[in-house]
Amino acid sequence: MTSERYAAGVSAGRTFVALWDSLLPVGRAASTGGYRRFAWSAADLECREWFRGEAGARGMDVEQDRNGNLWAWWGTPGPNAFVTGSHLDSVPDGGAFDGPLGVVSAFAAVDRARAHGVVPTRPVAVAAFSDEEGARFGVACIGSQLLTGALSPDRARALTDVDGVTLAEAMASAGADPGALGRDDEQLARIGTFVELHVEQGRGLVDLGAPVGVATSIWPHGRYRFTFTGEANHAGTTRLEDRRDPMLTFAETVLSARKRALLADARATFGKVHVEPGGTNAIPSVVRAWLDARAVDEDSLRALVDDIAERAVARAERDGTTVEHVAESVAPVVHFDPTLRDAVSAELGGVPLLPTQAGHDAGVLAPHVPTTMLFVRNPTGVSHSPAEHADQVDCLAGVDALTALLVAQVGR
Amino acid sequence: MTSERYAAGVSAGRTFVALWDSLLPVGRAASTGGYRRFAWSAADLECREWFRGEAGARGMDVEQDRNGNLWAWWGTPGPNAFVTGSHLDSVPDGGAFDGPLGVVSAFAAVDRARAHGVVPTRPVAVAAFSDEEGARFGVACIGSQLLTGALSPDRARALTDVDGVTLAEAMASAGADPGALGRDDEQLARIGTFVELHVEQGRGLVDLGAPVGVATSIWPHGRYRFTFTGEANHAGTTRLEDRRDPMLTFAETVLSARKRALLADARATFGKVHVEPGGTNAIPSVVRAWLDARAVDEDSLRALVDDIAERAVARAERDGTTVEHVAESVAPVVHFDPTLRDAVSAELGGVPLLPTQAGHDAGVLAPHVPTTMLFVRNPTGVSHSPAEHADQVDCLAGVDALTALLVAQVGR
Repeated sequence: MTSERYAAGVSAGRTFVALWDSLLPVGRAASTGGYRRFAWSAADLECREWFRGEAGARGMDVEQDRNGNLWAWWGTPGPNAFVTGSHLDSVPDGGAFDGPLGVVSAFAAVDRARAHGVVPTRPVAVAAFSDEEGARFGVACIGSQLLTGALSPDRARALTDVDGVTLAEAMASAGADPGALGRDDEQLARIGTFVELHVEQGRGLVDLGAPVGVATSIWPHGRYRFTFTGEANHAGTTRLEDRRDPMLTFAETVLSARKRALLADARATFGKVHVEPGGTNAIPSVVRAWLDARAVDEDSLRALVDDIAERAVARAERDGTTVEHVAESVAPVVHFDPTLRDAVSAELGGVPLLPTQAGHDAGVLAPHVPTTMLFVRNPTGVSHSPAEHADQVDCLAGVDALTALLVAQVGR
Repeated sequence: MTSERYAAGVSAGRTFVALWDSLLPVGRAASTGGYRRFAWSAADLECREWFRGEAGARGMDVEQDRNGNLWAWWGTPGPNAFVTGSHLDSVPDGGAFDGPLGVVSAFAAVDRARAHGVVPTRPVAVAAFSDEEGARFGVACIGSQLLTGALSPDRARALTDVDGVTLAEAMASAGADPGALGRDDEQLARIGTFVELHVEQGRGLVDLGAPVGVATSIWPHGRYRFTFTGEANHAGTTRLEDRRDPMLTFAETVLSARKRALLADARATFGKVHVEPGGTNAIPSVVRAWLDARAVDEDSLRALVDDIAERAVARAERDGTTVEHVAESVAPVVHFDPTLRDAVSAELGGVPLLPTQAGHDAGVLAPHVPTTMLFVRNPTGVSHSPAEHADQVDCLAGVDALTALLVAQVGR
């Protein structure tokens, strides 16, 4: 890939498709067709190389900040920069769009703005935040949370993956310096505006019949570890009445969480379970399960989780087991900058506004800098899956919207 | 440990305790207090050394047969031998009694018979069967199944542990010859009678108020892999009505399996679950779960599993998921030799008869040679756990019973 290719002035549509296609093979699992781009893994490093290559081909200087986030600068870095981007890492067997669509669209928008002869009055940067999904170390938005000081560097360094590798070790293996992690006010001060374009992860835009939308808020979101404790015993010889089987308590809690979420117009999901000892012929001693819960506001979220936990405790009494839960993380509600949101909506003319139930780096940055998000229609609503999809025509409409916003914000 | 110690004529009670204590430290995990004596591991080899040492101290010749089972002979090997023993390997973090109690009691019974001046009219052997639990290679009773031809040597050699090590490689590393595995009619023909003493793995003898009992049968036992398939999706953004969440179908099946087992006076347990993709913020695409089911006879077992599967399918329809199940193994009912059983019961005077729901090497041998089992009371019923226990006074009653049986069968 050379800068000549871009200098030759390929059409904006072809640029997006070429960009998109060049990233597609990286970190894709042949067995599932899903992506396994985990932070600081070989696939993640390959994504970072791709980012450096695309920036270099455009003559944009690249820096990797102290927290592993990548920045490609059009013009001199900050202050008051217009920054747009997303992330390149994935959940296990995730789709191609969640994250990469925002980074690819950001480069494509820069290309279009240049093709239109825009000379920016403010610095512009394309950003790729590190470890947004939290798939490897269990905490989401690590790069942006470190940048803003929401996550302490000591806690971050000590996070471990399933193989017991710490984040510090993983960074060091990848040639990054974990000692430099931490709140970075200098970098944060450079951001004047942040815009994250993202594939929608539900069917809101399908129902609204629109290819692109603007985010109003992010629902509060909690991750809770439930520990159901019983007594390991022989699956054949132990009479049912002598059992203290925590799998029963867990199962009832899965079903009751669904019912409570339905009644509260909220979301509750158990997607991760560990069983000990985990033998086919052993009644479990412990079932650990993680509840993902989200609701329209923080009081509703608290009420939902309290309700689920109370019912779990009641069932545990019947099963002779115990249940405890701890919040591993609770992200508060995020309201995106209303002035920016209204400006975006006016600029893009009739683009619908909608909330989201997913966490994003934009949600981490929003309390610190004027931030907004653009969503691109997802025809099935499926995300975090190899089946995640957006039609190309909608992706190009997303690039159009992002370009219009960029030009309105930085053009003269 | 020297043969002099035994020659000095220590009391039978002290012999049992000394024997028991000498085996206790082998393969015990300091973190849990449980045992990790997996086939052909260092801990298993240490158990085998202990067996050789105890046999040698008693002047008993030891052979390791082609399938890895250990035999200590009092007198010339077979035919028509009275063989008693059990196994030395454990489940992950198992208790001290399941297996070892039968081997220790066998040596102790030989000591007592000798102390009484018994001169056997038939050969006597103490046996320790290889890999009864199947904890390492996923198939139970490997040593006895190979001996009787129930398990093909090719299949056995190809079995792998979690690290991808085959049984053949594990045996070779331990200095045994995997090429020699297979049905061993010569060894089988030496067994005239087999008696396995075992800690009870339930509370049948507690309810009966008896320290020792005699087995009538082993319930048929099936292991079934259930695959619940839905669609991976984002746990935050996917509306409840758009989900196809297989965790719900699994949870309902766990609860219904318990209810059906209760109504059928049978056993049903889900002790092992794998979730894909297994992210905290992802609705699962697939939940794989293993059902352990046991019932009084084969028709009842089939009816139980059919009932559970039908209800799972009905729930899957509501959840937009699918469910399939396959039997990974189904062990038929085993009836122990009624003539031997009645002789034992008469010899031991008023000892209760009871069925068991656990598989044993005795169950594998029963179709080939007259076989019986003695159970020792377990005050809590707990087994396959570090909390597994039997009171010493009951263990000594077990040795008494086994000695009486041995003397009745081989004495003149």
